[in-house]
Amino acid sequence: MSARFFQYVAKTFLILFLFALGLPIQSSAGDPRWGTASLVVVVEREAGSVLIIDSFRQELLGRISGLGNLTHATVKFSPDARYAYVIGRQAQVSKIDLLTLKLVKQVNAGGVSVGGVISQDGKYVALSNYVPGEVRILDAETLELVKTIPAVYTDAGGKELPSRVVGLVDAPGNLLVFSLMDGNSVWVVDAGKKDFPVIRKFANVGKTPYDALISPDGRYYIVGLLDSDWMGLLDTWKLERVVPIPAEQGKGPEVPLWKIPHLKGWALAGRLAFLPAIKREAVLVYSALDWTPLTPIPISGTALYPVVRPDGRQVWVDIVGKNGDLIDVIDVESMKVVKTLNPGPGATHPQFTPKGEAAYVSLMDGGKVVVYDTTTFKVLKEFPAAHPSGIFFTSRAHKFGM
Amino acid sequence: MSARFFQYVAKTFLILFLFALGLPIQSSAGDPRWGTASLVVVVEREAGSVLIIDSFRQELLGRISGLGNLTHATVKFSPDARYAYVIGRQAQVSKIDLLTLKLVKQVNAGGVSVGGVISQDGKYVALSNYVPGEVRILDAETLELVKTIPAVYTDAGGKELPSRVVGLVDAPGNLLVFSLMDGNSVWVVDAGKKDFPVIRKFANVGKTPYDALISPDGRYYIVGLLDSDWMGLLDTWKLERVVPIPAEQGKGPEVPLWKIPHLKGWALAGRLAFLPAIKREAVLVYSALDWTPLTPIPISGTALYPVVRPDGRQVWVDIVGKNGDLIDVIDVESMKVVKTLNPGPGATHPQFTPKGEAAYVSLMDGGKVVVYDTTTFKVLKEFPAAHPSGIFFTSRAHKFGM
Repeated sequence: MSARFFQYVAKTFLILFLFALGLPIQSSAGDPRWGTASLVVVVEREAGSVLIIDSFRQELLGRISGLGNLTHATVKFSPDARYAYVIGRQAQVSKIDLLTLKLVKQVNAGGVSVGGVISQDGKYVALSNYVPGEVRILDAETLELVKTIPAVYTDAGGKELPSRVVGLVDAPGNLLVFSLMDGNSVWVVDAGKKDFPVIRKFANVGKTPYDALISPDGRYYIVGLLDSDWMGLLDTWKLERVVPIPAEQGKGPEVPLWKIPHLKGWALAGRLAFLPAIKREAVLVYSALDWTPLTPIPISGTALYPVVRPDGRQVWVDIVGKNGDLIDVIDVESMKVVKTLNPGPGATHPQFTPKGEAAYVSLMDGGKVVVYDTTTFKVLKEFPAAHPSGIFFTSRAHKFGM
Repeated sequence: MSARFFQYVAKTFLILFLFALGLPIQSSAGDPRWGTASLVVVVEREAGSVLIIDSFRQELLGRISGLGNLTHATVKFSPDARYAYVIGRQAQVSKIDLLTLKLVKQVNAGGVSVGGVISQDGKYVALSNYVPGEVRILDAETLELVKTIPAVYTDAGGKELPSRVVGLVDAPGNLLVFSLMDGNSVWVVDAGKKDFPVIRKFANVGKTPYDALISPDGRYYIVGLLDSDWMGLLDTWKLERVVPIPAEQGKGPEVPLWKIPHLKGWALAGRLAFLPAIKREAVLVYSALDWTPLTPIPISGTALYPVVRPDGRQVWVDIVGKNGDLIDVIDVESMKVVKTLNPGPGATHPQFTPKGEAAYVSLMDGGKVVVYDTTTFKVLKEFPAAHPSGIFFTSRAHKFGM
């Protein structure tokens, strides 16, 4: 009893003493320690902050603020998932330590940015910038500028113009692949070589690339085109040409383009691919083997993201615009919507735990993140959040283009 | 100067004092902090220890000893990759904290074990035991026994006998699937239900199951059979029957069975599957779409593990027995061995970094782990290790059956 009392007094004294010395204070109980492989970063778009959630224990770990304009933000991860890189609309890059939940570095890397990616080797963060039109490459450790690749194209009059850059992904062989929204091109950079040479430029791939995806194995790069009735397909094993694949099957009456959809590798379920249709209330289906179009699936509105559950048995479709609060669940075996969820106001951005047993959905206008059991569709948990939007699992660290 | 000297003396004094009190000693510099998403656990089989390596920084983090008989060991991970579960030959389960590199719990869970798996929900560690013939399920947090499922079968004379259990995997829907080596059966357990009911028993699937794999999406369970000329295929979406798929294509002269090969989900490269042939110097190739056999690929000896690089472009084949020091590299496009590596004595168990840019190989009789660049085949790094065998990346935490 007296020994324990002595220990208590001694510990208290020590903590105060350590504090005075500026040493880190870490008791066994308060020490922030968690594995980083299944964390979730949720963007709070209006507040310029992110929430860090432990998806395994379903616990909120903390909030990190001061990340700038996050109205169109993306989050990337170091290969060990120790660091998250939050890239904001104004090309502000914030490096967050997911063990200490501290902002460790912040830089500005352009004017307007729409995305980024970590190189296969984990050494670089690359940004796809609208303004100026370029890919900007930073050292992932220091966030120092390593290289700027201007995205220039020549217009009909022979004039050189900068193009907005979209659909930037990493690919096997330490490549970076991206598209020129105004330049109608696809470029390939070798990030393993000194000076990051552009090793391929494919021109006239179609009109107005808006986003792209790379298949989970890193082989196929698919670019979506706003003003052409096809998508462009590049085989990164060969880097020979961008082949058009049809995107007009089942074309019906047009509806408004509420928001430009996103393309990601989560669209692939084994031998099938599920992609959003532009201005139509359908999900496009392709054979992922030869990219032949299959019968589209009617949905409750227009799709922002069709996201395949990791086991490929369900596709959750985020509806935007009309019926924007709904999430349609497609059963892959029957190729039908088997469940329509109504999580709440502004439901968006469904994302799955690494093995798919649970799904996270942001209620942008409902002030929370809702977690569903993907078998029973029961709500497992809710996390209060301020205008949450994008949801990013650290398991993306190991996926090409994510 | 004098202030820094005072601080140095004070810190030294404090560290000694803390040590005496049994408090954790953690300075900023020495604080063990790393993301856990791309760590590697290497089994040192003779010493009963494991090495922990950071594959991103290519740094040895430490060694954990006292893990019992690791002559046939496997390592499983919690979903957040904070904990590694090392399962030894004598069914000893050691729970290791990958942040502190400490052994936090150790229990005995049977007589002789050949493997284990973490349930999809991360709550349980299940062991496939030879002796006694059973699946034993432990609480992943406490390692307390939760359930024992005896693997009994009825012989020709109507007698109930225990069977060795092999090929235990987790599957979507929080299922556990395993095979009875003596009982020639495949069983399915629902790990999401109270009392872990056996919900399916498929009898007479073929003679002497030796191991099994589940496809990376968790849909197909494939069991290898030592004494039948086929493998058994179960569609876990339907759980209807175990269908035979041929395994005798290109059958040539038999060679000795040096060691029972292993089957794992790493055998699948998109639309293709690469499996070891029993007693033949070839890798069997299948269409992963309908499991029709394709032309086998001749290799330098008999395969212990064909392992597909994460991007599906190469297959590294660990040769065992004759030419056992070699690793054959198959190029998937040309379906030929394009490179034969000779890493050193007892080279075994090639494993890739999560995105496949590097491969780790154990030299069981060469006292080290060698890291290759998978594009140039250059040696990037070597780690001294005592009789290293199995290599386990924490990225397995998110893969069914791994």
